[in-house]
Amino acid sequence: MGEALKGLKRTVMCGDLRESNIGNTVTAMGWVQKKRNLGGLVFVDLRDRTGLLQVVFGEEINSDAFTKADTVKSEYCIAVTGKIVKREAPNENMPTGMVELLGENIKILSESETPPIYIKENLDAGENIRLKYRYLDLRRPDMQSIFKIRHKAAKIIRDFLDEKEFLEVETPMLTKSTPEGARDYLVPSRNFNGKFYALPQSPQLFKQLLMVSGFDKYFQIVKCFRDEDLRANRQPEFTQVDMELSFVEENDIIALNEELLTRVFKEVAGVEIKTPIERMPYKIAMEKYGSDKPDLRFGMEISDLSEVVKDTEFKVFKDALENGGSVRAIKAEGCGAMGRKQIDKLGEFVKTFKAKGLAWIAVKENEIKSPIAKFLTEEQLKAIIAAVGAKTNDLVLIVADKNSVVFQALGELRLHLAKELELLKDNKEFRFVWITEFPLLSYNEEENRFQAEHHPFTMPMDEDIEYLESDPGRVRAKAYDIVLNGEELGGGSIRIHETDLQEKMFKVLGFTKESAWERFGFLLEAFKYGPPPHGGLAYGFDRMIMFLAGTENIKDVIAFPKNQNAACVMTEAPNVVDEKQLQELGISIAKEEK
Amino acid sequence: MGEALKGLKRTVMCGDLRESNIGNTVTAMGWVQKKRNLGGLVFVDLRDRTGLLQVVFGEEINSDAFTKADTVKSEYCIAVTGKIVKREAPNENMPTGMVELLGENIKILSESETPPIYIKENLDAGENIRLKYRYLDLRRPDMQSIFKIRHKAAKIIRDFLDEKEFLEVETPMLTKSTPEGARDYLVPSRNFNGKFYALPQSPQLFKQLLMVSGFDKYFQIVKCFRDEDLRANRQPEFTQVDMELSFVEENDIIALNEELLTRVFKEVAGVEIKTPIERMPYKIAMEKYGSDKPDLRFGMEISDLSEVVKDTEFKVFKDALENGGSVRAIKAEGCGAMGRKQIDKLGEFVKTFKAKGLAWIAVKENEIKSPIAKFLTEEQLKAIIAAVGAKTNDLVLIVADKNSVVFQALGELRLHLAKELELLKDNKEFRFVWITEFPLLSYNEEENRFQAEHHPFTMPMDEDIEYLESDPGRVRAKAYDIVLNGEELGGGSIRIHETDLQEKMFKVLGFTKESAWERFGFLLEAFKYGPPPHGGLAYGFDRMIMFLAGTENIKDVIAFPKNQNAACVMTEAPNVVDEKQLQELGISIAKEEK
Repeated sequence: MGEALKGLKRTVMCGDLRESNIGNTVTAMGWVQKKRNLGGLVFVDLRDRTGLLQVVFGEEINSDAFTKADTVKSEYCIAVTGKIVKREAPNENMPTGMVELLGENIKILSESETPPIYIKENLDAGENIRLKYRYLDLRRPDMQSIFKIRHKAAKIIRDFLDEKEFLEVETPMLTKSTPEGARDYLVPSRNFNGKFYALPQSPQLFKQLLMVSGFDKYFQIVKCFRDEDLRANRQPEFTQVDMELSFVEENDIIALNEELLTRVFKEVAGVEIKTPIERMPYKIAMEKYGSDKPDLRFGMEISDLSEVVKDTEFKVFKDALENGGSVRAIKAEGCGAMGRKQIDKLGEFVKTFKAKGLAWIAVKENEIKSPIAKFLTEEQLKAIIAAVGAKTNDLVLIVADKNSVVFQALGELRLHLAKELELLKDNKEFRFVWITEFPLLSYNEEENRFQAEHHPFTMPMDEDIEYLESDPGRVRAKAYDIVLNGEELGGGSIRIHETDLQEKMFKVLGFTKESAWERFGFLLEAFKYGPPPHGGLAYGFDRMIMFLAGTENIKDVIAFPKNQNAACVMTEAPNVVDEKQLQELGISIAKEEK
Repeated sequence: MGEALKGLKRTVMCGDLRESNIGNTVTAMGWVQKKRNLGGLVFVDLRDRTGLLQVVFGEEINSDAFTKADTVKSEYCIAVTGKIVKREAPNENMPTGMVELLGENIKILSESETPPIYIKENLDAGENIRLKYRYLDLRRPDMQSIFKIRHKAAKIIRDFLDEKEFLEVETPMLTKSTPEGARDYLVPSRNFNGKFYALPQSPQLFKQLLMVSGFDKYFQIVKCFRDEDLRANRQPEFTQVDMELSFVEENDIIALNEELLTRVFKEVAGVEIKTPIERMPYKIAMEKYGSDKPDLRFGMEISDLSEVVKDTEFKVFKDALENGGSVRAIKAEGCGAMGRKQIDKLGEFVKTFKAKGLAWIAVKENEIKSPIAKFLTEEQLKAIIAAVGAKTNDLVLIVADKNSVVFQALGELRLHLAKELELLKDNKEFRFVWITEFPLLSYNEEENRFQAEHHPFTMPMDEDIEYLESDPGRVRAKAYDIVLNGEELGGGSIRIHETDLQEKMFKVLGFTKESAWERFGFLLEAFKYGPPPHGGLAYGFDRMIMFLAGTENIKDVIAFPKNQNAACVMTEAPNVVDEKQLQELGISIAKEEK
């Protein structure tokens, strides 16, 4: 059993000590990073949240302390009192490297077995063991610094929004299951057996109701939940920075958030954001980058060849055009000499996005090489090369299909090539772009109906609103996403705030009037009482921290994350519960564990 | 359909306008509190989050605006542009009462049906209708001011803890069901059918693990969940201000929190807290006030008569004493003339707390009146009166039983009498007290075992630790509650941080070694790796806001609260879900709705 503090107080943090502290008698507490017994002196690198401090114990400093210090091992938790002195052999690599602590007294607060993972930066250990011993993984300085960043970012956001007179209002966690969206986590009710709460996917409806209540400017940093199969960088519970404002239009929300982003990225990561941030309509983003979250740190834009090849008899192109699709291409600079096998691999790659194949044209010094050359006139070939601006030693990569396939295939191919060609190596840029004018609806071919692209509460653009029932697919929304380096950082919209229009929207989505009222009656009812025009935005806070901390793994920015199966390896949640608990909830287990 | 903003910007908030704004052309937006057409002028009281502003429309100001303004009704949402002028008939009761806005332009942003509740302060409406139309209830200025207070309190707490170098770290909402405590809300797992997550009752274990991780100072303002039958002022989801610190002892935590409380109560409510706050051991609190959350705003302390009546033959007293109980009394000042019926009612009252009865002695000018006088000697009677310090016209109320019954009965009687006698009428005091030296364990007579008084992770006091196994009931804990005006505002403890002691604690609580490891293995394992001494505290944030806002109803401080059945009247949560959802979760409904 370790020694108790019994009134002993820590007076300093290890990482703070400098030459100005020489002569001070201090008490530091922390963990043994390393212990060496060298020539009758015991050296301990003592670690706390702020950094490392060298502590020296010796017979001549204090004999009892020396003897006790010699028994400590890595990760023992200790308290040391003594004088700060100048270090004879300074360590320039350590912020505290000019000084050391002469250990006159030591308490062993607790001992440690040999930890199953090293407590050091840049640990190369399996994810599973890191998650199982998360409390040790979090002891590592690089993990701790991420949570300092996370704390700081949340603080800056709160301070900023407070200055702007937003009120943080908490919305319920136990709420109603709503369709349209991802799968809900359900919570069985004990008072009403057979009924369930749902954990919120976002506070969307509540924040809109707060606008109806006249709260004017709301925000919340809040947990949200989605019971989806976990792709990389998704977690079942995640954190949103959520906001909503009344009496505003798109530009107001965008301007406010540019100010917010500028402050956060500057103060946390020293990144200067140039404002106003570029805006790009969805249509342009798709046409140029094949994505509604384009990575603008590199070019390789998509070119439309449809006009150039409109008279071709080449069946692949012709079919695509006749079916209302298109023929488009990207240019891989300097890849003209790429081998057949490599190009075939790119062909396989685009097939995973439903493209039927990848046509290519390699521009060589004195010739043009292409398996489709025989189907095209020389004029067409030249026109293609001109259209994409290919020069000697470039490779033109072409997909012909319906637009959705062409965009996705070339968009993904563009990103894939950028990675292969290491176009972003050492790129430190933070390239923001607002994507605007999203389609309000997208057609779900499986379910044979329109679904909300954003969510069913998004306001159509004024100039398109007349087509909402006659031609829903052409209606654009007052929606905007903020995209950073090809990732969606956040998104929002102006909302519908009138019962009639909201009902019309539900109708387009396939709701009957009854089913819309059954599910969203409280919102439709609320809009009868002078709702203000309003809109908002939500950021994925975890993703924001990933950018600020420079990690690509969402698990790194969440203290106790779940694994790919939505399980916590450390606590072993989810887990079995007592039969009595289920009885009280009036539920039973219908099938065995998968 | 209402008019769109189309670029119109709000330039002022209603409540901000003063004489210094005279001559400004402004645009205000908000709701129609009241409209009158008086002698060819339309007067609108326009309301936003900040207050009311009088707007005047007239033929001579702007004819179109006048005509349109005359069509508005209460709770229409409008935007008005015009000039601020001096008001001819100032209204001293309104902060903006010196000025008015001449309406040159008005947009009706949305119309309103007649609201089902009045939008006004001190609304006297049924709770159910207020909850159903919560978005309108929240429009009322007194409700809005509560959420301003709530926002401000959270901000001050975060700023304070940030200054003190705490890190806010988010802990999981989807976690493992643990026993010892209230009933968990469960969340069925889709990936592991038959297994469940639990929503956290508190982040207790996670914050302790963060201490093991060396985070040093953690806090979080976080939702917690308890599936209990809802007594008044309980909600199924509630908010905690949760903190944990390493390398500290009780006094450090108490001192820090006195600083925190002082700041919050001062800055939010203008209340000066005198520090250091009084501390009172649990034993004294029980003996003097019959409660571990004594209301110290009034006296009426309990006196122990056991010694005074130790030789009595009066069976009620004698039995109590012989069975290890006691005879105790409170003095109701000035109640010596209380009628028999009223005293009988007090007797009924104490019986609800298991007391067998209530003996009494009324001290009159020239006599002593008491139904038990005949069982006592005159000397004993006098000694009792002296012991409680009763004077002429006082009433002595006596309970004899085992101590737990005596304390509760007299403690509750004390509070009851204070209310009856209006002792706290117009009392504005904020009387804080720390209750310390709690028993570590209490004996659960139904389950015939000891249970943790605080929670199973609480450290025993050093001087009592040796009795943990031999005499668990006498062990006191390093635990402390902060009590304000008879309500528990928060509580905490120093925690056990060593595997051996924690295992011993589980054993005393009736766990086998296996069952303890099965449930808390991750904590026991974590303590093997140099855990620091640590402790913490958590506040009930909702209750804190109730004090700061001066409301006695917890529903007033939660934007969208649940009713007594844990249901949301507005959204109708909980509700039925699709069979498909249940199938995916592998659960079925075992019994019909109660």
